[in-house]
Amino acid sequence: MSILIATQFTPAEWAQWEPALRQALPHETLLTAWPVAEPDAVDIAIVANPPAGSLRGLNRLRLIQSLWAGVDKLLADPGLPAGVPLARMVDPAMNEAMAETALWAVLSLHRGFFAYAKQQREGQWRQRAQRRADEVRVLVLGLGQMGRTVAERLARNGYAVSGWSTREARLHGVATQAGDAALPAMLAKAEIVVNLLPLTPSTAGIFNAQTFSQLRHGASLVNLARGAHVVEADLLVALDSGQVGHAVLDVFQVEPLPADHPLWRHPSVTVLPHVAALTDPRSAAEVVSRNVQAVRQGLLPEHQVDRARGY
Amino acid sequence: MSILIATQFTPAEWAQWEPALRQALPHETLLTAWPVAEPDAVDIAIVANPPAGSLRGLNRLRLIQSLWAGVDKLLADPGLPAGVPLARMVDPAMNEAMAETALWAVLSLHRGFFAYAKQQREGQWRQRAQRRADEVRVLVLGLGQMGRTVAERLARNGYAVSGWSTREARLHGVATQAGDAALPAMLAKAEIVVNLLPLTPSTAGIFNAQTFSQLRHGASLVNLARGAHVVEADLLVALDSGQVGHAVLDVFQVEPLPADHPLWRHPSVTVLPHVAALTDPRSAAEVVSRNVQAVRQGLLPEHQVDRARGY
Repeated sequence: MSILIATQFTPAEWAQWEPALRQALPHETLLTAWPVAEPDAVDIAIVANPPAGSLRGLNRLRLIQSLWAGVDKLLADPGLPAGVPLARMVDPAMNEAMAETALWAVLSLHRGFFAYAKQQREGQWRQRAQRRADEVRVLVLGLGQMGRTVAERLARNGYAVSGWSTREARLHGVATQAGDAALPAMLAKAEIVVNLLPLTPSTAGIFNAQTFSQLRHGASLVNLARGAHVVEADLLVALDSGQVGHAVLDVFQVEPLPADHPLWRHPSVTVLPHVAALTDPRSAAEVVSRNVQAVRQGLLPEHQVDRARGY
Repeated sequence: MSILIATQFTPAEWAQWEPALRQALPHETLLTAWPVAEPDAVDIAIVANPPAGSLRGLNRLRLIQSLWAGVDKLLADPGLPAGVPLARMVDPAMNEAMAETALWAVLSLHRGFFAYAKQQREGQWRQRAQRRADEVRVLVLGLGQMGRTVAERLARNGYAVSGWSTREARLHGVATQAGDAALPAMLAKAEIVVNLLPLTPSTAGIFNAQTFSQLRHGASLVNLARGAHVVEADLLVALDSGQVGHAVLDVFQVEPLPADHPLWRHPSVTVLPHVAALTDPRSAAEVVSRNVQAVRQGLLPEHQVDRARGY
């Protein structure tokens, strides 16, 4: 059987992925063009933004393996074959990269490094008050693979971390609560909110005027999940009033962020170009290889997506 | 017996220190003006940049307790009484603050966050390659209380950390070497060099044209120790040529950094206004209290300075 790789990678991206996938799947026939000559010989599709129609006619698929962690776009694709097990990428290296970005954002907010960068541009030498990490309350929203890694890394670095998720979760050193009713009180206590929720119909637009009004005045938002979690117009109002003190945003409603978008130049916004955690082709290819072997042995793949739930 | 507190604190600083010291030393008479009426009743001096002459005539001193970790300025003061045990501040909260700043600087360099800040100012959406922390070689110079805390924190966060000091040191998860002969080879391997050396005659100017030439092209310098460790003119040449890729500087030859100094505006320099680790009055006052009690009981104070060695 063969494996179809359906992506919209640039040549530079493919130059990173191809050797990693070939090394992790040395005995497999990897097809990279479609429509394929023998569709019934393809039992697995590896996808990353698969072009429209690229999976058409593959009636023997036993696994669709995404190379991305987020599958909201993939699930919205009407060309996605129904009834085929779909696995998302859970790459340990990507989880660690996400924890690094979250930790950097929290350190920057806690210790005033964004403010010091502004002072440097203005040539201003002024020391700000310093607080201990255990005095800084950080709330992590979303306690899946990434949210857990982030929350535990922040806790290990001394922060007072709480975590919220739609379903119950237990973490080492992190006080957790679940369900909509618990959220307002948790928001009211946090100084820094880190978003790592999956994007689903119930989490889209979760950061809106009402949520911002539940925060402490001057609390910060770190959005490392999806742009559609945030109502950007409401965020701009909350930033202008100071209700939200600072926002670190890696993701946006429209990406790349349009050149004339006010978030680019807002003095209380840090813009990252969707780089909080890139998939590492080397470790991701190993994850793919394990799932290919599992499915070939008649086992279920790891990290299968619940299509109804949306992640 | 009484304790003289001789500092050049601003009223705002004293407003933080006074309650912390009074709470930690509830049964002591704390004098804050000089010359004191009964010099022979003063057995302990707590100092932070003590004004010239403030310790004169105190012939019964058994302890001079610095509130700062660095004592290079104090040792250079001709008014410092000879022969009196001198203790520097080793404040656990300050060590943690230093580890936070070092970790933030290393994360920023490793993950390109200084570069992304520049991209934001230019409205440029461009993703940079992402590497794993264990691929990033960080060298910590100076393995005293602060250097150790920094090196171990970086190692716990996944970095490939090595450490160099003048005397042998052993750390968990950190490859250490000691002595001048070992330094060039360690510099040649590092991508990020974090300086936490004490300032002594043998470490002054340690970062000069020769040292910079021993680094890998494009390596970064994080100086969290003393401005006099760096020959700033040599650093500017190395930054302009790209031999040093970026410098994060918390300390300078002259502080505050003069308004017309080229380091303020160099595109490859991050300027911090000597805030990498401020002493925390609450935990520092506890350290002072323990040393006061030790000396009153006839014991040696902790963290006594070797005046000949210089730290």
